[in-house]
Amino acid sequence: MDISFQSIGIIHTPYFAFNTPHQPIPDAPGDFWITLNPEYASALKSLENSNYIYVLYHLDQASPTIELLTHSPWAPELEIGLFASRSPNRPNPIGLSIVQLKAIQGNELVISGIDAYNGTPLLDIKPYMHFLDSKEDANNGWFDSLPDKDHTMAHALGLSHEHGPEHAHEHEHHHHEHEHRHPDHDDNHDHNQSSHSCHDRTSYEDGHDSHDRGPEHAHIRDHKHTKYHHEPND
Amino acid sequence: MDISFQSIGIIHTPYFAFNTPHQPIPDAPGDFWITLNPEYASALKSLENSNYIYVLYHLDQASPTIELLTHSPWAPELEIGLFASRSPNRPNPIGLSIVQLKAIQGNELVISGIDAYNGTPLLDIKPYMHFLDSKEDANNGWFDSLPDKDHTMAHALGLSHEHGPEHAHEHEHHHHEHEHRHPDHDDNHDHNQSSHSCHDRTSYEDGHDSHDRGPEHAHIRDHKHTKYHHEPND
Repeated sequence: MDISFQSIGIIHTPYFAFNTPHQPIPDAPGDFWITLNPEYASALKSLENSNYIYVLYHLDQASPTIELLTHSPWAPELEIGLFASRSPNRPNPIGLSIVQLKAIQGNELVISGIDAYNGTPLLDIKPYMHFLDSKEDANNGWFDSLPDKDHTMAHALGLSHEHGPEHAHEHEHHHHEHEHRHPDHDDNHDHNQSSHSCHDRTSYEDGHDSHDRGPEHAHIRDHKHTKYHHEPND
Repeated sequence: MDISFQSIGIIHTPYFAFNTPHQPIPDAPGDFWITLNPEYASALKSLENSNYIYVLYHLDQASPTIELLTHSPWAPELEIGLFASRSPNRPNPIGLSIVQLKAIQGNELVISGIDAYNGTPLLDIKPYMHFLDSKEDANNGWFDSLPDKDHTMAHALGLSHEHGPEHAHEHEHHHHEHEHRHPDHDDNHDHNQSSHSCHDRTSYEDGHDSHDRGPEHAHIRDHKHTKYHHEPND
């Protein structure tokens, strides 16, 4: 049985087909805001007290092909299950991001960076509450087994960090194959955030104006050795 | 334009119409598990490394009447916007809960307590990752303005705590009108968890077998002084 939802607003970002980060980058350059359909404006009352919110949205540009075994952009050599990933290509392509709420102006919400295309349909907004949602004893799942997890997390979060001189950006997701840190080396450099918050991707090339492909067109692939693509995560 | 999703599994809980908590109670009595449709079982690979997961589900018993201004069960005297609440009666009734993942057995996931009816349709599972999802600087939104917020949080989380002798359970959501704490008083008592994790509700009386009422039947009410109902939160 179909479960039917409606867009209740639009997410505005600087991101189009080729520059969307895999995770929200809080201080990403550009403007990020949500336009809630005007008839819902009064439902934002009291939300201004929250400094973080959940944004749920329709990943309307996700691939109709679902791969049950997939690869994270942060660990392309590791095969993980789709439900252990944040891949947008899911049976039900619902995006979930936690962002900072900076201001509410009528039916518009000014937010920190969100990893969604410009024009993404909004499904829901919920308040993030520290006492319910911030699990201090949570781990990072399979991410904790990565040999250079701290470094990879810095990339995922768009944080500045140092790389050794042998580091080449074009294989930034294979860092653990190298030894990067030479803190006493003159050639060290800081990555600026924008150069690391965005990634080309090959599997997500449709512009946002292309026709919607809903889950009714989905095909499941379950092969063991899928070709790796860079894919945005929700 | 309709956005169409499909159930990909079923959430099993001890909760029917009248005993569902407003938030997940981690140590709630009873068995909680998710049966994922068998064709997706392989997509759980590597998820066993996560100790917490997000569960997204269809709040298929939510009221078709949306109230843009509503009241939390934890602060019934405070009028808040629907998007500042976790009420299930939303334009798109998508439930979001963070639960502990205890075991994966084939296509079944054994989880900690979740605030969903038995038989709730599953929409998605995502790994909760500490470095992405646990926001230590998050506040509690409007909840932080409650005069007895620590006490109310203890109720919301189903935690044992002490009440003074004048405390009556039948108005447990009005605690801040009283002075409860008399730590040196002999009549203090601990609440056991089960007596506080479940609440009758008047607006959610349909059994789970009743027909589905999708958002296409929704009516918006935006009056200022709606009658308060106990409602489960997602």
